[in-house]
Amino acid sequence: MSDLPMQGPLFAGMFNTVDGYDNHSKIPDYFDAMNESALEAGKVCIISGGWDPGMFSINRVYADAILPEGSTYTFWGKGVSQGHSDAIRRIKGVKDAIQYTIPIEDAIESVKRGDMPEFTTREKHKRVCFVVVEEAADEKQIENDIKTMPNYFAEYDTEVHFITEEELKINHSGLPHGGLVIRYGKTGLNAEYCHTIEYKLNLDSNPQFTANALIAVARAAYRLNHEGVSGAKTVVDIAPAYLSAKSGEELRNTLL
Amino acid sequence: MSDLPMQGPLFAGMFNTVDGYDNHSKIPDYFDAMNESALEAGKVCIISGGWDPGMFSINRVYADAILPEGSTYTFWGKGVSQGHSDAIRRIKGVKDAIQYTIPIEDAIESVKRGDMPEFTTREKHKRVCFVVVEEAADEKQIENDIKTMPNYFAEYDTEVHFITEEELKINHSGLPHGGLVIRYGKTGLNAEYCHTIEYKLNLDSNPQFTANALIAVARAAYRLNHEGVSGAKTVVDIAPAYLSAKSGEELRNTLL
Repeated sequence: MSDLPMQGPLFAGMFNTVDGYDNHSKIPDYFDAMNESALEAGKVCIISGGWDPGMFSINRVYADAILPEGSTYTFWGKGVSQGHSDAIRRIKGVKDAIQYTIPIEDAIESVKRGDMPEFTTREKHKRVCFVVVEEAADEKQIENDIKTMPNYFAEYDTEVHFITEEELKINHSGLPHGGLVIRYGKTGLNAEYCHTIEYKLNLDSNPQFTANALIAVARAAYRLNHEGVSGAKTVVDIAPAYLSAKSGEELRNTLL
Repeated sequence: MSDLPMQGPLFAGMFNTVDGYDNHSKIPDYFDAMNESALEAGKVCIISGGWDPGMFSINRVYADAILPEGSTYTFWGKGVSQGHSDAIRRIKGVKDAIQYTIPIEDAIESVKRGDMPEFTTREKHKRVCFVVVEEAADEKQIENDIKTMPNYFAEYDTEVHFITEEELKINHSGLPHGGLVIRYGKTGLNAEYCHTIEYKLNLDSNPQFTANALIAVARAAYRLNHEGVSGAKTVVDIAPAYLSAKSGEELRNTLL
């Protein structure tokens, strides 16, 4: 993807911006590029402001700060991964496809129970694919191509179901998603007290929720810039009140 | 309780402070008193920084900002209410007692299902009491005194169990607590997409978790004051990163 890495710093030189940059491993580089442009232009640019990165990041930071002894786990789904769906669609003989990422319940239970497990990729999520093929396509070959695709599917238990174009349209046209950040932590002289902090999203529409989160973050960018702030920020650099349409007084009266 | 309303503003005139002031309806007045002292002394005083108010407040604010169309619900428990336990202990003939606040599962399910219910007090939580009586005490009278106590029990379905001092010590000596903030919200042109945001705590020890939260908040008070900030703040006025022991760079590399 070259859109945000190119366009982000370009627009940061002109406007206060918000974005949902989600290539976790490249966030530090992207932040630096955005920061340089934003500082030069005197703008506030808030990056990675959807739900992961975004609300999930915020919750990982709070949970880690409050319970320093412990482990944090992030699970995604049940939901549609657009990147994995696209990867299937690029296979020869595939007409259309959708892929659901599904967290493995036993893994979540193990975290809540306090096992503090170290999971392999396969133990946390499975992948379920619904595929529409071209006429006379080789389903065996397609199934094999999916299941052995490195990075996308080979590291997971993957199910492949072949369905008709109509079934896909009727049963799989939405973009639901969600997930869970959970920290299991211990306190006490002998670490004898256990605590769990969970943050869980269940979303009918991933793009709509993401857009709503970004709009809330946009309030913060505007306000901060009005206060004379400039530079790149992530959502963990922003006080929650800046995202709210309510005044500080109203928040203290109604939501605190 | 007169400790914090008196002592808070006094210490705010001398030190950066954090507290867990939890009388929700009086937070605005307490904030104003703290703000005046803190501004005069050039200190940062963060109020109401435990879990409710505190982490639950933060989550109510974020959820409300992201999903403006919807309803937010807070459930407490299962956990020990020290105020309610004390209220029972003040009844004639009671030697010791503990009270558990228990959220009603059907109510939580109704929220998750999207009924957007308006609950009575009785419909959200029930109260379960374990009571040790003095010799020759009138258990019938005590049970009646508990169940009809206004504000504390009369508005709830309340169970009263009489147990021995030894049973109380063995089975009920901890102070577990927890709870759930959940927002059910809608998006879309016709509000046809539903989303839930849940924040859930499960705590072996309410005081230990509260202390840990306050320590994280204390980092923020110290840092903000070093940056030249003064005045009263609540946790929703503080960026998440200020609570973390990690640097901004470290957060972007590891938790974002």
